[in-house]
Amino acid sequence: MAEADQYKESLQESLQQVIHLLNKHKLVEDLVHKQDMPRHALVESLVHKQNLAELQKRLEVLHPADVAYILESLPLDQRLIVWDLVKAERDGEILLEVSDAVRQTLIAEMDSEELLAAAEQLDTDEIADLAPDLPRDVFQELLESLDSQNRERLQSALSYPEDTVGALMDFDIVTIREDISLEVVLRYLRRLGKLPDHTDKLFVVDRDDALLGALPLKRLLVHDPESSVASVMADETVTFQSEDKASEASSAFERYDLVTAPVVDADNKLVGRLTVDAVMDFIREESESDMLSMMGLREEEDLFASVWKSVQNRWTWLAINLVTAFMASRVIGLFEGSIEKIVALAALMPIVAGIGGNSGNQTTTMIVRGLALGQISAHNMKNLFYKELGVSLLNGLVWGGVLGLLAFMLYHNVKLGLVMTAAMTLNLLLSAVMGVAIPLVMTRTGRDPAVGSSVMITAVTDSGGFFIFLGLATLYLL
Amino acid sequence: MAEADQYKESLQESLQQVIHLLNKHKLVEDLVHKQDMPRHALVESLVHKQNLAELQKRLEVLHPADVAYILESLPLDQRLIVWDLVKAERDGEILLEVSDAVRQTLIAEMDSEELLAAAEQLDTDEIADLAPDLPRDVFQELLESLDSQNRERLQSALSYPEDTVGALMDFDIVTIREDISLEVVLRYLRRLGKLPDHTDKLFVVDRDDALLGALPLKRLLVHDPESSVASVMADETVTFQSEDKASEASSAFERYDLVTAPVVDADNKLVGRLTVDAVMDFIREESESDMLSMMGLREEEDLFASVWKSVQNRWTWLAINLVTAFMASRVIGLFEGSIEKIVALAALMPIVAGIGGNSGNQTTTMIVRGLALGQISAHNMKNLFYKELGVSLLNGLVWGGVLGLLAFMLYHNVKLGLVMTAAMTLNLLLSAVMGVAIPLVMTRTGRDPAVGSSVMITAVTDSGGFFIFLGLATLYLL
Repeated sequence: MAEADQYKESLQESLQQVIHLLNKHKLVEDLVHKQDMPRHALVESLVHKQNLAELQKRLEVLHPADVAYILESLPLDQRLIVWDLVKAERDGEILLEVSDAVRQTLIAEMDSEELLAAAEQLDTDEIADLAPDLPRDVFQELLESLDSQNRERLQSALSYPEDTVGALMDFDIVTIREDISLEVVLRYLRRLGKLPDHTDKLFVVDRDDALLGALPLKRLLVHDPESSVASVMADETVTFQSEDKASEASSAFERYDLVTAPVVDADNKLVGRLTVDAVMDFIREESESDMLSMMGLREEEDLFASVWKSVQNRWTWLAINLVTAFMASRVIGLFEGSIEKIVALAALMPIVAGIGGNSGNQTTTMIVRGLALGQISAHNMKNLFYKELGVSLLNGLVWGGVLGLLAFMLYHNVKLGLVMTAAMTLNLLLSAVMGVAIPLVMTRTGRDPAVGSSVMITAVTDSGGFFIFLGLATLYLL
Repeated sequence: MAEADQYKESLQESLQQVIHLLNKHKLVEDLVHKQDMPRHALVESLVHKQNLAELQKRLEVLHPADVAYILESLPLDQRLIVWDLVKAERDGEILLEVSDAVRQTLIAEMDSEELLAAAEQLDTDEIADLAPDLPRDVFQELLESLDSQNRERLQSALSYPEDTVGALMDFDIVTIREDISLEVVLRYLRRLGKLPDHTDKLFVVDRDDALLGALPLKRLLVHDPESSVASVMADETVTFQSEDKASEASSAFERYDLVTAPVVDADNKLVGRLTVDAVMDFIREESESDMLSMMGLREEEDLFASVWKSVQNRWTWLAINLVTAFMASRVIGLFEGSIEKIVALAALMPIVAGIGGNSGNQTTTMIVRGLALGQISAHNMKNLFYKELGVSLLNGLVWGGVLGLLAFMLYHNVKLGLVMTAAMTLNLLLSAVMGVAIPLVMTRTGRDPAVGSSVMITAVTDSGGFFIFLGLATLYLL
C-alpha cells in the first residue's frame, strides 16, 4: 500500500535519481568531447547506452503526472533528453499534464508524426486542450482522422471560450432511460464492463437525449433492484449549459459539493458532463493567474524559460510601472524649489507615498475578494466606503502622529512634523477612497479588477502622496 | 431542472429580496421609533410580523451554503436579524458554511443552549471545525454529551494541527472484508440503506481494521457478482496518514484525480477518509490566505468588520512597512548634501527604487511558485540565478537607457543620464539576486516564503535603490 508521504518522497527521489543519471550521461559526453571521439562512436558506446537504459527504466514506472513534474523541474537541455526517453505511447497523457509553457517547449521538439500519434491516444475533450498548441497542419490531419461524431465534438469544444463550461466539459457520459428497473441498469453496467473516471451518477434521458434527471450510484446501490429508475432518480440535479461561465460552475461545485454535473444545450439536450477534477484544475489556474497578474507577470512562466521569453512575459507591467513612476517623478519635479530650501522633504516624502500604497493595496484586496464572491453591490457600497475611511483616519492619526514625532525629533521643526502627520492622514484617506473606487469602476467597465488594481492604486497613492506632502510643505513651511 | 445560471441569478435575487424585506422591516421600526410607540407594541404589530414571516419563508427554501452567502453579504445589524430568523435546526450547517470571521459574529449572538443544539446536529469531524470558535463551557458540555467513540474521534481530530490530513478527514467510512463476494457486498449496501456523501469506494480491512485495499463502486458495479472482493479490489490505493501535510495530500488529489482516499495510522489501521470537497475547500483557503498575506492582511476579514477589528487585522504589515520606509528615508538622509546641490536627484530617485521593487516582486513570485510546486532544489538554483540576472541586465540596459535619456532631456546633464542608467541596471541586478535569495532563505529557515517575501524584497530594493543612485551621483556628479 503506497502512502502519500512515500509518493512525495519518491517523487523528489525520482527527480534526484533522474538528475543523477543525466549527470552521468553528461560526464560521458563531455569526456568524449574532450577526446574528440566522433559523435556516432559516442552514441554506440556501451556506457552511454547503459545510462540511458537505466534512466528509461526509472521513467517507465512513473505516473504521467509525475513525469510531467520531472519535466517541469528540469532545465531545457535535460528536459529534452528525458522527453526523448519517455515511451511514445504515453506522450499524449504527459503533454496534458505539463503546464502550458512547458508543453510548448516539448511540442516544438516533436515532428508531425509524433504529434499525431500522441493526440490519437487521447479523448476528444483532451485533444481540445492540446489543440491551441498544435501546428496547424497537424491539427488538420488530426481532424480528418476522427469519425464524424468526434470531429463535431472537437469542433464544438474548440468553439467555446476558455472560461466557459463548454471548454471544461468532457463527453464520458453514461445515459439510461427512466422506465427501466434498477436491475436492468445493473445488468447494463456489467455489460459495459467499464465506467468513466469520476462517475458518481448516471444521466437519465428521454428518447431525444433531453435530460430528465440523474441516478446517483449511491442510490442505485442501496435501493431495491425492482424499483424503476424514475422512482429513485434525483430530478433536481444541478445542471450547467455549455455557455455558462466556468467560474460560476466552479463556485457551484464548491457550494453544493459536486463530483460530476451534466451539461445541456439550450434545448435541455445532454451534451457532456463536468467533473470535479477539471473544476479543481480550473480553480488552481484561476487563483494562480490572479496572483501572477497582481505581481505583474502576464502569464504562467516556465521556470527555465529563456531570458528573452521571460523578458517578454514581464515587460508589459514593467513598462506600465515605469510610466507611473515617471509621472510621480514629475510631480516631485514641480516642487524642486521647495526641496532645494528644505532638503528634509526629499527624505520624508517616500514614507508618505509608501504607506499610502500599502494601505490602498490592503483595501483593494478586500474589495476584489468581495467582488469575486459576489458580496458587494449597490446596497452596501456606502457602508464599505465609510468603514475604509474610518480605518484610514485612525491609521493616519496614529501612524502619522508617530512619524510626525520622528520627523520633529530628526529635524527639530514642529511645523514639519505637523505637515508630515497631516499629509499621511490625507494620503491614507485618498488610498481608502481609491482602494474602494478603482476595483468597482474596473468591474463596472467590464475589466478584471484583480489584474490592474494594484498597479493603479500604487500610481495614485505615489503621485498623490508626493503632491499632498510637498504641497502642504510649500504652503506652510516656506 | 435547475440550471447553474438560475442558481447564480436566484442567489443574487434572493439577496436582493432579503435586503428589500429588511428595509421594509426597518421602515416600520423607524416609524414606530419616531412616534415613540413602546417597543413591545412594535413587536406585536401586524405589519412587523408579516414582514418577518415573509423573510423567513424566503430563507427556508435556500441551501445552507446560500444562506451563508447572504449572511456574509449583509452588514452586522441586518445579518443578525436574518440569523435570528433562520430555522434553529439549520444553525449548525450554516455555521459550517460561513467564513471564520463571520462565524465569530454569529456565535457571539448565541447562548449556550442554542450553540449546543446547533453542534448536536453535526458529525464529529464537523464539530471539530467549529470547536475553536465555541466558548469553553459550551465545548465541555458538548464533549460530555457525546458517546465514547465520538468523543475520542473529536479529541483526536482536535489534536491535529490545522494543516494536516487529520484535521481535514471525516469518519464516514464504509468497510468490507476481502473474503466475501460482490453479491454479499451489494446486499450489505442495500441493508445499510444510505451511503455517505462522495462515496466512490468502499474500504477493505482485515479483522484488526488494517487497510488491505479499496473497492471502487465502479468496479463493484461492472464485475460479476460471484467474484470475491479480494479479486476485484484495487490494492494500490493512494493512502494518507493523519500526520501528513494537508498541502501534500491536496496536490496528490490533483495529481491523481482522487475523489476520496483512506487515512491510516502508523499501524496501517484505517482511521478516516479524506474527500475531494474538503480538499477543494482547503485549496481555496490556502490560495486566498497566500494572496491576502502578500497584500499585507493578516487573515480573511469580514467585509463588514468594525473599523477597530479591521485596524487590528491590518496593523502588523503597516507597521513593518513603516519601519522599512523609515529605513529607506534614513538612507536618503545620508545624502541630503548631494540632493541640496542637485535637486533633480530627489525627483529621479523614486523611479530607480520603484522599478527595482516591481522587478524583484516578479522574480519572487516565480520562485515562490516554483518552491510551492517542489520544482526548485539545489541542482537548478544556479540556472535560476543566471536566468534572473540575465533578465535584469537586459531590462536594466533597455529601460535604464530610456530613463537615462529622459533624465538627460529634462535636466540637460549627460552625466546625470549615465548615473540614472547605471543605477537602474545595478538595482535591477540587486532585485534579481534578492528576489531569488529571499524566498529560498525563508524556506530554508522554515518560514512561509509567500508571506513576507514581497515586503522584504521591496524594503531591499527601496533602500538599495536610493543608496545606489544617490551614491553614484555623489561619486560622479559632485
